[in-house]
Amino acid sequence: MPKICIIGSTGSIGRQALEVIENLGPEFEVVSLAARSDEKKLEEQCRKHKPNMVALNNLDNASRLKDSLKDENVKVLSGEEGINELITASNADIVLVSTVGFSGFVPTLTALKNGIMVALANKESLVIGGELLSREVPHFRELILPVDSEHSAIYQCLLGHEREGVKKIVLTASGGPFKDMYLEQLKEATPAQALKHPNWSMGPRITIDSATLMNKGFEVLEARWLFNMELKNIEVLIHPQSIVHSMVEFIDGSVLAQMGTPDMRVPIQYALTKTKRKPNSFPALKLTDYQLSFELPDYQRFPCLELAYYAGESGGTMPACLNAADEVAVDLFTKGIIKFTDIPKYLELTLKEHENIIEPSLEDILEADREARNRLVKSVARLG
Amino acid sequence: MPKICIIGSTGSIGRQALEVIENLGPEFEVVSLAARSDEKKLEEQCRKHKPNMVALNNLDNASRLKDSLKDENVKVLSGEEGINELITASNADIVLVSTVGFSGFVPTLTALKNGIMVALANKESLVIGGELLSREVPHFRELILPVDSEHSAIYQCLLGHEREGVKKIVLTASGGPFKDMYLEQLKEATPAQALKHPNWSMGPRITIDSATLMNKGFEVLEARWLFNMELKNIEVLIHPQSIVHSMVEFIDGSVLAQMGTPDMRVPIQYALTKTKRKPNSFPALKLTDYQLSFELPDYQRFPCLELAYYAGESGGTMPACLNAADEVAVDLFTKGIIKFTDIPKYLELTLKEHENIIEPSLEDILEADREARNRLVKSVARLG
Repeated sequence: MPKICIIGSTGSIGRQALEVIENLGPEFEVVSLAARSDEKKLEEQCRKHKPNMVALNNLDNASRLKDSLKDENVKVLSGEEGINELITASNADIVLVSTVGFSGFVPTLTALKNGIMVALANKESLVIGGELLSREVPHFRELILPVDSEHSAIYQCLLGHEREGVKKIVLTASGGPFKDMYLEQLKEATPAQALKHPNWSMGPRITIDSATLMNKGFEVLEARWLFNMELKNIEVLIHPQSIVHSMVEFIDGSVLAQMGTPDMRVPIQYALTKTKRKPNSFPALKLTDYQLSFELPDYQRFPCLELAYYAGESGGTMPACLNAADEVAVDLFTKGIIKFTDIPKYLELTLKEHENIIEPSLEDILEADREARNRLVKSVARLG
Repeated sequence: MPKICIIGSTGSIGRQALEVIENLGPEFEVVSLAARSDEKKLEEQCRKHKPNMVALNNLDNASRLKDSLKDENVKVLSGEEGINELITASNADIVLVSTVGFSGFVPTLTALKNGIMVALANKESLVIGGELLSREVPHFRELILPVDSEHSAIYQCLLGHEREGVKKIVLTASGGPFKDMYLEQLKEATPAQALKHPNWSMGPRITIDSATLMNKGFEVLEARWLFNMELKNIEVLIHPQSIVHSMVEFIDGSVLAQMGTPDMRVPIQYALTKTKRKPNSFPALKLTDYQLSFELPDYQRFPCLELAYYAGESGGTMPACLNAADEVAVDLFTKGIIKFTDIPKYLELTLKEHENIIEPSLEDILEADREARNRLVKSVARLG
């Protein structure tokens, strides 16, 4: 009986994961749940899924949750240490890390260090922490199952095929809502427009990141660590229908592609079952409904993609700098303070000013993050 | 050093295989070649590829070949026994059976019985002989590598994935030159029109069989034996661009597809290298050149597909009856004696009149073949 722990259970992926587990039936058990601060949602999930342990990062909220869950037989923990304790003590054999941001790194590291499998939805664990992770847990690849639809696709296409036969990985991207906009129009693009993703329903930052292709850039960096591929062998192809979730091209010219409806529950399930296929009632793919098309990405109109490759090639703390700067830039765009086309401009400036630290410690990464945020805000104040 | 034997080396697949082997370099050795009757071509191949043994089915041609190859250090055999001797005595570790027709069955059986791997391009070995083969060599699946692009695609999609997770196999079909013709127009379709295949360059019978979808029907029957699938879990989807070579749908809704340019050399190479990927200089797939579309097959306008499922469900000698009748019907159509839409009509009549023999012997199958040919000709004489 698979025992599942979810870090970030109140977020979009966490909630879909609980739906998946319910659908999988009593064979799958939720042993622990953790979230940042949403005590109401966590209480509700706790009463429904009966975990042995729960944790909230926020101490006050955790204390209130402890009170309201007095009638349930559940241990309530708090803070980062509480979450780490929950990972190691709740007897889980798979931990879904579905928080957003670099805060997902420590839970990922804790699980991996304890030899517990990780269903990884937290991009930053690898985008920012990949290098550190590969030093701390050299065999981490054996323990990670990707949850992102693109990386799940690649994982499925690589399974059973010899690695020396792989020529390249091709990550597909919908292209976002601005795929066909001229550069002049992009300058006037509004947050409301950017928040309308054509195919996937996701949080605001990742949706804006999809519009700039920054999200795809981060996925390239994630794929690099996940599949131990050189960046030059990871390509991006625009595929507006989001049916082909990604592809692997082999040296003999053969291409394997994984396809499906754009539904996160499918890759979530595949990871939580540790790649064991199980039936579900999610809508099946009807290929006759689509015309599948593919375009090369336009680096001129969407420079963020190239910035990601640059940060990846630089390594060290550069990806942390890019991620932090992007979070701030997206926030400033959402608030109407900078233009859509200013996002890559400020990111490039911040990357160029960054003093890269190779083989960084966790503290180096956190410092690079803080510094990048400050510098981007200052640049905007100076130039904007 | 892989040692390769080719049965049917002077045909289209055989010649492409020799090109593939040449491209693979000196690591791959041609140890023996056999053909039906083309002594000139075989002599030429012999002088270039330096096999240890060659064989011709036709005794007179073999005797002439022996004379003309006096200066080469090569053993020349003849007849069906000669071909069987060549398979077992030439020290091959893979035999490509690329002849057309049920004559490929005995070489396939001989190789498998001797534990030699078979790269199978001969459909009839399984379409007609599948049941017999599964009785004679129960573990035959471990020894067969498919060469048909569709079956090579399925093979690649299944590799590494648990069989109980497979929901169905989806064979793609270009739809042939008459895909969009109305039934009324189909009645007037000429052999010249039917011989123009949109994507693949193949022999005349298989091209006409593509126009009627009979070829896809035979591929369904082949897939059934090759992958041990029930016929109800094998579907056909029209895909006019012939880029997705076939797909596997899993029970969780995920679909794996193998793609590539329509180039038989790729699946031939994959089989001859025993699934080891090797680089080549064949044109790479450029997905940005295509819009991939999919349609359900129209069983009304193309009844041959349903006849194949009927023959497959019936089992026994019924597939042999269908194949023999189809060969004659295609020949009569090519000669202008019957109409395009008469092909399925006469096939259905022949199937209905056939007295099926379950668990047939080789002799039962050969008798069913002869009888079907006679009966179809008689029906045409009576009704046509």
